[in-house]
Amino acid sequence: MKSLKIPEATVMRLSVYSRFLTRVQEKGVVNISSGEIAEGIGGSPAQVRKDLAYFGEFGTRGVGYNANELNHHIMKILGLGEKWPVAIIGAGNLGSALTQYKGFIDRGFKVVAIFDNDLNKIGLTLNGIPVYSIADMEKIIRELDVKIAIIAVPAEHAQGVADHLANCNVMAILNFAQHVISVPEHIELRNVDLAVNLEILTFNLSLQKEKDKEK
Amino acid sequence: MKSLKIPEATVMRLSVYSRFLTRVQEKGVVNISSGEIAEGIGGSPAQVRKDLAYFGEFGTRGVGYNANELNHHIMKILGLGEKWPVAIIGAGNLGSALTQYKGFIDRGFKVVAIFDNDLNKIGLTLNGIPVYSIADMEKIIRELDVKIAIIAVPAEHAQGVADHLANCNVMAILNFAQHVISVPEHIELRNVDLAVNLEILTFNLSLQKEKDKEK
Repeated sequence: MKSLKIPEATVMRLSVYSRFLTRVQEKGVVNISSGEIAEGIGGSPAQVRKDLAYFGEFGTRGVGYNANELNHHIMKILGLGEKWPVAIIGAGNLGSALTQYKGFIDRGFKVVAIFDNDLNKIGLTLNGIPVYSIADMEKIIRELDVKIAIIAVPAEHAQGVADHLANCNVMAILNFAQHVISVPEHIELRNVDLAVNLEILTFNLSLQKEKDKEK
Repeated sequence: MKSLKIPEATVMRLSVYSRFLTRVQEKGVVNISSGEIAEGIGGSPAQVRKDLAYFGEFGTRGVGYNANELNHHIMKILGLGEKWPVAIIGAGNLGSALTQYKGFIDRGFKVVAIFDNDLNKIGLTLNGIPVYSIADMEKIIRELDVKIAIIAVPAEHAQGVADHLANCNVMAILNFAQHVISVPEHIELRNVDLAVNLEILTFNLSLQKEKDKEK
């Protein structure tokens, strides 16, 4: 693999291409062109080719890509060649929704533990996944070899949970709490802000309005 | 506003800049440089300047940007100068989590209605928001002038809900269901795939491993 700095937007699109390829493979498609991928995901063929070019050549001119091979390659690039057991911190509505989230299951992410400090929840299972006490987090996370944790607690508890996770050998944190957290440099952190999605919609709606006015 | 085609990645970053500007404004910051914005959000100053250049010049060399003015300008670009009442379809864990989602409230998005077909939920309120029958969707959405709907139903019902929403004068749909849906061309559609966030993490973790090997 080339060690070029790959833009995050490209990584996000690779993830989308991979899902699309899985879908077409299920329909029995063997070869696929960059144009067909672009159409399937709502992008441009040039963009698809540019994104895939980061990783060397593996299409054939006139034939396109072998869907299975390309998908396998992308999944490997995305680090999905290995298993990543996931823990969720917070057994509230969001944490609970995430345990059932089909999008995680489809991509091989397995939630193996939930942590909460609510005595009414600890010891139970949530959608089949055991709810442990936050006090046992370090022990359980090491036992289950969890490297990725998802923070789904109220904003005011997010930094405390992040500090705790930093002591548990976790390598990556996905933070859903609407609070800016800081983590030691060796931990990969990603803050999810669902409102960004709504703002892309309002941006497009405003643009539409402007265009309608011009007519 | 220039009618250049603005890349979606830029729109996403504008949304992030705006949140950061709101935070620094709350701390009393008046002027801010592209370098400070870049540091605050973990990007590069060149990227910040490039993104803001789409919308003309509104910084002063050596002084930077007036945080309040810049934020106001970005919010307007994002279409947040007006109110966008939002409806959520699906009163399950995810729909319920979204009604309380601080990130929506912080950015002025107000959930005004939830729709479900569960007779045990219809007529109640969820976090203060009324749950209506899906059968009444067209009437209620028109009455409340909802233009943005969020689909939070199981995958197998997503397309049916989208078809129904298309008849309700909705202008934009945010789809959380893990199912590819199609909508009439005049409706803005955005599919949210939370697994993409996990895959950016696993991509970075794999990259880290490669680097560690090279050492």
